[in-house]
Amino acid sequence: MMANGIEKEAAFQRLTPQSARYLVESVDAFLFDCDGVIWKGDKIIEGVPEALQFLRSMGKKLVFVTNNSTKSRKKYAKKFSMLGLEVREEEIFCSSFAAAMFLKLNNFPREKKVYVIGEEGIMEELTLAGFECLGGPEDGKKNILLKSDFHFYHDKSVGAVIVGLDQYINYYKIQYATLCIRENPGCLFIATNRDAVGHLTDLQEWPGAGCMVAAVCGSTQREPIVVGKPSTFMMDFLLQRFQVDTSRMCMVGDRLDTDILFGQNSGCKTLLVLSGVTNLSVLQDPSNNIHPDFYADNLYDAVDLLRR
Amino acid sequence: MMANGIEKEAAFQRLTPQSARYLVESVDAFLFDCDGVIWKGDKIIEGVPEALQFLRSMGKKLVFVTNNSTKSRKKYAKKFSMLGLEVREEEIFCSSFAAAMFLKLNNFPREKKVYVIGEEGIMEELTLAGFECLGGPEDGKKNILLKSDFHFYHDKSVGAVIVGLDQYINYYKIQYATLCIRENPGCLFIATNRDAVGHLTDLQEWPGAGCMVAAVCGSTQREPIVVGKPSTFMMDFLLQRFQVDTSRMCMVGDRLDTDILFGQNSGCKTLLVLSGVTNLSVLQDPSNNIHPDFYADNLYDAVDLLRR
Repeated sequence: MMANGIEKEAAFQRLTPQSARYLVESVDAFLFDCDGVIWKGDKIIEGVPEALQFLRSMGKKLVFVTNNSTKSRKKYAKKFSMLGLEVREEEIFCSSFAAAMFLKLNNFPREKKVYVIGEEGIMEELTLAGFECLGGPEDGKKNILLKSDFHFYHDKSVGAVIVGLDQYINYYKIQYATLCIRENPGCLFIATNRDAVGHLTDLQEWPGAGCMVAAVCGSTQREPIVVGKPSTFMMDFLLQRFQVDTSRMCMVGDRLDTDILFGQNSGCKTLLVLSGVTNLSVLQDPSNNIHPDFYADNLYDAVDLLRR
Repeated sequence: MMANGIEKEAAFQRLTPQSARYLVESVDAFLFDCDGVIWKGDKIIEGVPEALQFLRSMGKKLVFVTNNSTKSRKKYAKKFSMLGLEVREEEIFCSSFAAAMFLKLNNFPREKKVYVIGEEGIMEELTLAGFECLGGPEDGKKNILLKSDFHFYHDKSVGAVIVGLDQYINYYKIQYATLCIRENPGCLFIATNRDAVGHLTDLQEWPGAGCMVAAVCGSTQREPIVVGKPSTFMMDFLLQRFQVDTSRMCMVGDRLDTDILFGQNSGCKTLLVLSGVTNLSVLQDPSNNIHPDFYADNLYDAVDLLRR
């Protein structure tokens, strides 16, 4: 955030052939958000394969950092492949993986269980990391009949609740998570992320994890630990794997409050693309205090400038 | 809120025979919250019929003010009757009714529709007030299959979204409400209330409207107009019907952040009963800044003091 209007004006600029060359020369690794940058829903954004190929041919490391927790790393690798992109599992950092790694790095006791509001991705990553989890898709069809003398039981050995994007959110899951957080001593409340909406399909935005997380905040009156963007947890973890200084990284994303803030919080350079949820008027609105170093219409245009 | 610790200490006291007499003499109307004061779920709280009967016999006006929007006034009158209490519809102010009255008093255009996240109570009150509504229980069983080329349509003539307690909350409803609020110009976002939890059954607390409202705040990043407690809208409306000055009213409730705050915001005297969600340690916790004038274990005990 800048101190005055003049600095604000200077704080971000449309990428030019000159600044694109500067950017690519000063950066060794590009971190990409996926929804709104690489794809929208299940449709790849035009020109992305060429752009990624070009950056790889220049010897740049590519990393994919997504807040979408509905898939595991493994499933994301498959999705990339289906869309004709060669991306290895190790290059993918999704918030489902981040949630599992958070528990692992914090020595979450193996005898404790994890309750999940979210989809397959979180369950798969937790299982892979050796944690016992319950909830998730299985509880999506459960109903409650509120009546006298009915007691809703929850597992007292749940030591963490993870909340992510969940298309099958219901009252059962919310009550289960609420009871664990309110009644199990020391129970952690972890959010994969707090995105308000996301391009879950190519045509529209849909309520994001921020909606499910808010629901649980609403009933528990507690605030979660966030492991996805803009929290730097994912970056700290990523830095252990990639030997690149953050000042030699560039975060490319379509969201100001997650991607660009994440990049800035971590000390990366930042490039906003307008192919997702943010348009130029939102970026330039005086009420917006999050300013990327550069912006471009989309990834192809950004990379294409290097060829001029 | 008090300025220092000493005033805090003095700000509330356990009701005594003396203060009970003072209270009853200085008050012409008693306003009662229902859940946690009159009943828990479908079970009446012991001694309530006697207590209400005694206050009526002293010529006091009784009014029932509940944030629970799942029923209409008519259905609440039936519930009172089933529990052996004679209460007229006109004595009941529930947040479902308040939401409909808010639209009416603000001249909500008759050609516009209302989308509802909530249960029968809101639908019934809206219909009674002459508004066309959609959503509610009917949308509780609708699912979405997120896939390419799928477009979720919403009615562009929806001019208000009302969110209340909804046991059948789902992703369909959240997306519908979100699209109306984000895309229909001038669309109102109205919350019946923001209670975190409530005694929907006798044995347990359950996530309240605050949970559904937070979910929609999370996806829309907008804040709602609240018509239930602690907002004074209900009181302003109530005052038009009852010719009693608020200083001659006493609000009796089990929640600090809704009932007691509502009473204080409106200039009423306030009595907290410990038969619902608030216990003595919460009341006396230094972090609590909401202090009723008096507190008692329950309504029967409070009224019983008058007989000593």
